[in-house]
Amino acid sequence: MPHRIVFATQHYQYLKDRILSLCGDQCENGKLEIRDFPDGEHYHRILSNVGNKEVVLIGGTIDDQETLELYDLASGAIQLGALSLTIVIPFFGYSTMERAVKYGEIVKAKTRAVLFSSLPNTSRGNRIVMIDLHVDGITWYFESGIRPMHLYAKDFVKEAALEMAAGRPFVLASTDAGRAKWVESLANDLHVPAAFVFKRRISGDETAITAISADVKDKIVIIYDDMIRTGGSLIHAAESYRDAGAAEICVITTHGIFAGNGFQKIKNSGIIKRIICTDTHPNALLIKDDMLQVKSVAQLIVDALALETFS
Amino acid sequence: MPHRIVFATQHYQYLKDRILSLCGDQCENGKLEIRDFPDGEHYHRILSNVGNKEVVLIGGTIDDQETLELYDLASGAIQLGALSLTIVIPFFGYSTMERAVKYGEIVKAKTRAVLFSSLPNTSRGNRIVMIDLHVDGITWYFESGIRPMHLYAKDFVKEAALEMAAGRPFVLASTDAGRAKWVESLANDLHVPAAFVFKRRISGDETAITAISADVKDKIVIIYDDMIRTGGSLIHAAESYRDAGAAEICVITTHGIFAGNGFQKIKNSGIIKRIICTDTHPNALLIKDDMLQVKSVAQLIVDALALETFS
Amino acid sequence: MPHRIVFATQHYQYLKDRILSLCGDQCENGKLEIRDFPDGEHYHRILSNVGNKEVVLIGGTIDDQETLELYDLASGAIQLGALSLTIVIPFFGYSTMERAVKYGEIVKAKTRAVLFSSLPNTSRGNRIVMIDLHVDGITWYFESGIRPMHLYAKDFVKEAALEMAAGRPFVLASTDAGRAKWVESLANDLHVPAAFVFKRRISGDETAITAISADVKDKIVIIYDDMIRTGGSLIHAAESYRDAGAAEICVITTHGIFAGNGFQKIKNSGIIKRIICTDTHPNALLIKDDMLQVKSVAQLIVDALALETFS
Amino acid sequence: MPHRIVFATQHYQYLKDRILSLCGDQCENGKLEIRDFPDGEHYHRILSNVGNKEVVLIGGTIDDQETLELYDLASGAIQLGALSLTIVIPFFGYSTMERAVKYGEIVKAKTRAVLFSSLPNTSRGNRIVMIDLHVDGITWYFESGIRPMHLYAKDFVKEAALEMAAGRPFVLASTDAGRAKWVESLANDLHVPAAFVFKRRISGDETAITAISADVKDKIVIIYDDMIRTGGSLIHAAESYRDAGAAEICVITTHGIFAGNGFQKIKNSGIIKRIICTDTHPNALLIKDDMLQVKSVAQLIVDALALETFS
Amino acid sequence: MPHRIVFATQHYQYLKDRILSLCGDQCENGKLEIRDFPDGEHYHRILSNVGNKEVVLIGGTIDDQETLELYDLASGAIQLGALSLTIVIPFFGYSTMERAVKYGEIVKAKTRAVLFSSLPNTSRGNRIVMIDLHVDGITWYFESGIRPMHLYAKDFVKEAALEMAAGRPFVLASTDAGRAKWVESLANDLHVPAAFVFKRRISGDETAITAISADVKDKIVIIYDDMIRTGGSLIHAAESYRDAGAAEICVITTHGIFAGNGFQKIKNSGIIKRIICTDTHPNALLIKDDMLQVKSVAQLIVDALALETFS
Amino acid sequence: MPHRIVFATQHYQYLKDRILSLCGDQCENGKLEIRDFPDGEHYHRILSNVGNKEVVLIGGTIDDQETLELYDLASGAIQLGALSLTIVIPFFGYSTMERAVKYGEIVKAKTRAVLFSSLPNTSRGNRIVMIDLHVDGITWYFESGIRPMHLYAKDFVKEAALEMAAGRPFVLASTDAGRAKWVESLANDLHVPAAFVFKRRISGDETAITAISADVKDKIVIIYDDMIRTGGSLIHAAESYRDAGAAEICVITTHGIFAGNGFQKIKNSGIIKRIICTDTHPNALLIKDDMLQVKSVAQLIVDALALETFS
Repeated sequence: MPHRIVFATQHYQYLKDRILSLCGDQCENGKLEIRDFPDGEHYHRILSNVGNKEVVLIGGTIDDQETLELYDLASGAIQLGALSLTIVIPFFGYSTMERAVKYGEIVKAKTRAVLFSSLPNTSRGNRIVMIDLHVDGITWYFESGIRPMHLYAKDFVKEAALEMAAGRPFVLASTDAGRAKWVESLANDLHVPAAFVFKRRISGDETAITAISADVKDKIVIIYDDMIRTGGSLIHAAESYRDAGAAEICVITTHGIFAGNGFQKIKNSGIIKRIICTDTHPNALLIKDDMLQVKSVAQLIVDALALETFS
Repeated sequence: MPHRIVFATQHYQYLKDRILSLCGDQCENGKLEIRDFPDGEHYHRILSNVGNKEVVLIGGTIDDQETLELYDLASGAIQLGALSLTIVIPFFGYSTMERAVKYGEIVKAKTRAVLFSSLPNTSRGNRIVMIDLHVDGITWYFESGIRPMHLYAKDFVKEAALEMAAGRPFVLASTDAGRAKWVESLANDLHVPAAFVFKRRISGDETAITAISADVKDKIVIIYDDMIRTGGSLIHAAESYRDAGAAEICVITTHGIFAGNGFQKIKNSGIIKRIICTDTHPNALLIKDDMLQVKSVAQLIVDALALETFS
Repeated sequence: MPHRIVFATQHYQYLKDRILSLCGDQCENGKLEIRDFPDGEHYHRILSNVGNKEVVLIGGTIDDQETLELYDLASGAIQLGALSLTIVIPFFGYSTMERAVKYGEIVKAKTRAVLFSSLPNTSRGNRIVMIDLHVDGITWYFESGIRPMHLYAKDFVKEAALEMAAGRPFVLASTDAGRAKWVESLANDLHVPAAFVFKRRISGDETAITAISADVKDKIVIIYDDMIRTGGSLIHAAESYRDAGAAEICVITTHGIFAGNGFQKIKNSGIIKRIICTDTHPNALLIKDDMLQVKSVAQLIVDALALETFS
Repeated sequence: MPHRIVFATQHYQYLKDRILSLCGDQCENGKLEIRDFPDGEHYHRILSNVGNKEVVLIGGTIDDQETLELYDLASGAIQLGALSLTIVIPFFGYSTMERAVKYGEIVKAKTRAVLFSSLPNTSRGNRIVMIDLHVDGITWYFESGIRPMHLYAKDFVKEAALEMAAGRPFVLASTDAGRAKWVESLANDLHVPAAFVFKRRISGDETAITAISADVKDKIVIIYDDMIRTGGSLIHAAESYRDAGAAEICVITTHGIFAGNGFQKIKNSGIIKRIICTDTHPNALLIKDDMLQVKSVAQLIVDALALETFS
Repeated sequence: MPHRIVFATQHYQYLKDRILSLCGDQCENGKLEIRDFPDGEHYHRILSNVGNKEVVLIGGTIDDQETLELYDLASGAIQLGALSLTIVIPFFGYSTMERAVKYGEIVKAKTRAVLFSSLPNTSRGNRIVMIDLHVDGITWYFESGIRPMHLYAKDFVKEAALEMAAGRPFVLASTDAGRAKWVESLANDLHVPAAFVFKRRISGDETAITAISADVKDKIVIIYDDMIRTGGSLIHAAESYRDAGAAEICVITTHGIFAGNGFQKIKNSGIIKRIICTDTHPNALLIKDDMLQVKSVAQLIVDALALETFS
Repeated sequence: MPHRIVFATQHYQYLKDRILSLCGDQCENGKLEIRDFPDGEHYHRILSNVGNKEVVLIGGTIDDQETLELYDLASGAIQLGALSLTIVIPFFGYSTMERAVKYGEIVKAKTRAVLFSSLPNTSRGNRIVMIDLHVDGITWYFESGIRPMHLYAKDFVKEAALEMAAGRPFVLASTDAGRAKWVESLANDLHVPAAFVFKRRISGDETAITAISADVKDKIVIIYDDMIRTGGSLIHAAESYRDAGAAEICVITTHGIFAGNGFQKIKNSGIIKRIICTDTHPNALLIKDDMLQVKSVAQLIVDALALETFS
């Protein structure tokens, strides 16, 4: 069996450590030397031998530096003779810029997919592993020479919901119409009702939310959204559910970005009791607050890597 | 200005004729010789000179023969020195097989996108024009060397809705959660309420529909769906709206496929009063019934071809 | 040694079974789920795990549906992580449309070769195996990234000839000038005389056949042609040999297509005593008649797959 | 209209001059600086400005130096911004190594086609023009991104035959079974009988020729072959026709290579009265002998370049 | 003549303005909408119509954000139908990481060249224009489908040298052995002596500089280096020339990066009297000090764009 | 472990033999059949089975025939199913034509790199191994899909220098400014002084050499240059060192080409006492003279092949 070696970009070392601790002897800890120069250039050196090894490279496209670090490390591993390359992108940045609404808008989700698809192939081929993409189709934005794999953290959501509900009846709720289908599906799996929020435009950019389903009254409402960025639309939705009589509002999200003071804003709103997210984005680890619980996707990734194939 | 010449596959000659009649002298009518051999092979010959011309090729991926005819004619035009190639696919088949739900499912929307992306480039590049895709993201399933363009028949939907409503108040309704976002957006544009249908799984494959929004009672409900195939889910949704007290139910769809006896089944249900669809699929033209009105997308396509660029 | 798994398109299941029965435990029987939708779309799912296996996919380009089924299954196997992909095309359709005689004719043999060449590569590369191509050069119509292999069923022809002759002297004969070289070579291998048919154009499309070599008189004439489609030119040639005094006329062909009522037409002509063909085309298996004997190419394919290399 | 500029490799300057003299003001004479270094390296510089011009580059793959000179000049023109590139290869070397007969034989016709197909594309695309290929299919050995064009010098053959016959009846004859089809077609066009030569293997490499058709007796036999290399098989065939009673034997060939002392050998045999060939190979121009007449293909090439398209 | 439109990344707007002011009516000012989101994502929209226009895009690879902005804007222009794309990279970052000295070092100059080479081609092709690359060969690190052009700012250096010398005799000097060839060439063009600095390693990383050529004594020494980053090696070299008796030391550099407090460090050293650099890097414009004079490369770029070809 | 098999072009059989003798049983001796035809075409056949083997192919781009032989053999090995392909080019011809100085010069180092990069990939990828390139950057002229490796024969140079010095103090010297950096580095490694030669242009092409560093007086000067072609610039440099008082002048070079009567010219000059070179170019082996010592790079290549990776 070929040797597997795991590397991560600078911000994802924590996830590499968690993955390695689950792998036991089966994975080697990939060593890098990274230095920054005063002129803004970065020096990257792969210290471990990667020749004829299965290289796993973990990194999110969370900002420009991480994106290019991921691209450069991947290029290096390929050049140094990696047998295969699996790029694990726990959080795929720009997944909300996945289509052009106005003329000239640059569809970043496509340009990033093309960027990683342009890497030369390793002997055993290149693969991309992503988790809970904002839009399913992004899986196929990648060019045909690379094999993408989309992991669903459905089990995480279900477990988090059951943990939050703690035996009490609850409603699974969406933040907007875009996620209606997914929440419908999750609610059906959990055998609970689904609640939805729709918006009606009043004038210009002003919208009024219409919380659908009268059945949130006096019930626990668990909102699921794939990501929380600034928390704005989450608070907006939560207010609707509160106004509709929800007894308690909890939140589950896969990607806890909490950009800027996003987390504090949510906390200050006082509407949401508790949040559970995963560790797909390094920001989530920076917040130390009882209101937020972070669960790791390390096992989900380890299980996917164990497969010899992709669905 | 380069000369433009328009060809169509066998089933789309009607659309070519409509487009040519709108173009006046600006487009040449492309001639083909097509013959079928007893062994199932087809002979294709491009009779018109296409060298240094802008070639427009119209054809749907409505079945295997049309798909390969489109591929072969495109290959021929490229080989014969076409200056540019624009493939207009009014109905993009397999757009509902746009992701794999189970291991091993072949994502046909991707394989078809890859198929057309593999055509060698013409001097001015190859473009693909599609209309009201079931899933937006399919636009970006094409490889980066070809330029896809997604046309929205929004104006058709709005005009059809206003024509059906004839001044009376109405609700714009969806058939399932998957189109919730789109219907929300259309309803906001029309300044009318939106109604949605959600399904709760009862056991196994059995689902109960929950028509949301009490406001359909005694109102005209105009259901919009991007395509009608066998009509099954449409009838199911319409029943819900009827049960919720809708005064009258009309239907707008972009792609009228009406596979098998689909149209007759809808008509026999007696729930739907009227249907308006476009001519993106040749099946719609075969139905001669007062209940169905077919409007052409020819002008929409002509306008898109007039652009020098794609958004 | 990597695991080998064999799949076939719907019409070639019989050949897969024959190949598997020759392989013993060395090959796995690949399972598929195939369903047809009322709107003409087909659902394909690869049920067996193909990750890191050597995938063999059997299918002829006998019609449009089979061609796209082959393309889709190949795409699926690649996406699911097949280690290598060998596409066995026992009968390569369109092999007579291998050049353009008039302006604008689409060279289907090239477009089909390009179609399969556009498949993304597996780790160990993609290969195409074909048998007795109408024109040798088609082997190299494939693009340079795929490895084609042309199998010659010469042994089948020789054995069939010796079986038909049953010890009696015979002449090996061609149907037209295009196969002169091949028949010359076969006749030399068998140490028998070769007979040839040439055509002289009389006026327009009317041609008069000139059976060369007086030595067919009172002899057994065994005509070899690579394929029998409608049987027209075969009957034409046979008549010439009969008129030249042949004692008995038998026919060997690799590809027995017998399009339409081709076989019945040949039988009704009463000139040909016996035909031996292979099972490269599923049509041959549908004919149950003592006059026709079908021999399998399964062993020829199994032997080729056993090679680690291609010539 | 874009500006056209014509270059040639060192051995094909004569053909460039002939083409330019037919073009008048429509083509610019492309200037090169070529120097050889003592270590076997060659210096190539394109002196004329080729930016945004239609570049025509003439050169045969007659030996290794010419082949790489063609490749290098083409690379240079592309890099310098040529609008389009048409490579005219009057004689395509290695066209008889177009398939592998034994394991491991390198199919040079394919490797050369791949070599030229690997050139990056110009804006208007790259084209290859070839004349009377030994095997038609080589046209499609080129990869799909380049557009090959195969010119047939049929008119040259017909005119040469009529000129040689000078009103007397004649037979058009082949040198071996491989060209049977082509000679059959030419003979039909000329409304004359066709004669063919077949070989029977006696033992090992020894073959006995069987001149078919008794009708060469006392007639003028005009042998057509696509190329004369050493003249061996031509003399062999001519002897057969002489033995069969031919009154006079003349020869037409497209490519007069006359390798080594080929021409002298033919002349010394005393069997052949006269030869007409074209100037596709520079060797033909080196022979000054009344027995050989060389006609230029310049007009054929000029006509092809005038087309905006390729069949 | 096609329409030309010029865009720049955020940091290079000043250079776009200078170029546009030199172009007059011949170039359109390309408009962009750029916004930054709190989560580190950037929104880019091309507001101007670029369809069928010659797009010029100016931006340096000065840091990760600029690099990806350049990549995204280029992707957008291609997708929107630009006729041609010329990317002007006045300062090509990572040009000193142009080879690997130790195992595993990532050759960023190559990965950046590959990154831009992976952009899909426009109709008229993509070009890259760079200025005074640290290593000439980087021009050819780009893949063969894109056309690179390397501009030499030799005239700027010569004029700056003559301006600094103001009629007084001077010596042109290098900072290290790596630029010896270039300085030799420049000195020869200016008909002045060349001075060189070489380093001898004393122990470990400690090096002693050996200023060669005794002829700097009492002379004006003008040091040329392609870039000044932190100024460290420049000061080191200047000290050597001072110690060797130079009367006055001035500096010319193409790329004035002055990372960190680089400029202040040079100024504080008190050894260098005056510096002239170009505006290829935006940092140079931020320094307001009489000691530094910045000359624009705008005209050099405008002249290059006017060429229809690349050398 | 996969089987390794070694082939060489005709001129490099000696190096294959040396490599095989160092490999013991680990490498198979690859057999070829090569024949030349009278018309200048070459027949190549790979006799050994290469399927699923690691193919090593040795050949220099020393002239056109060798270059195409290398290309054809590589193409053949790929087509026949080689598992991996490593092309060892001990002397990379055209490495001094690595940039264009004047408009229109064809950068052969790039066109050759592109030529070999265009070979289709083997399963384990294609690699190029080169030794002491004239310009480092050529390593990255290859396209991104192939993995280049640049071997430095530094140990050879050091050992040769120590052997020549035989304990006596010496100076390591360069022939021109272009190699200054490399000689500086080597001298530092050897803890000896470095001497450099610079040229000042007097008028037109006439240059005067300025031997720098007074310390060559009465010392042994060992000149290192990467290649000796005609020996002209070497003799020129040596004269300078002699004039500067050198006690003895020896020469080390990696690539001993000695084009034309190069070696004799050097010998006749009487200035140089001794030369040591490697066997990267077959010319070096043809010279039998006590003044020249040839050391093999076989071990250097064997060591590189033993690595599973490339730096």
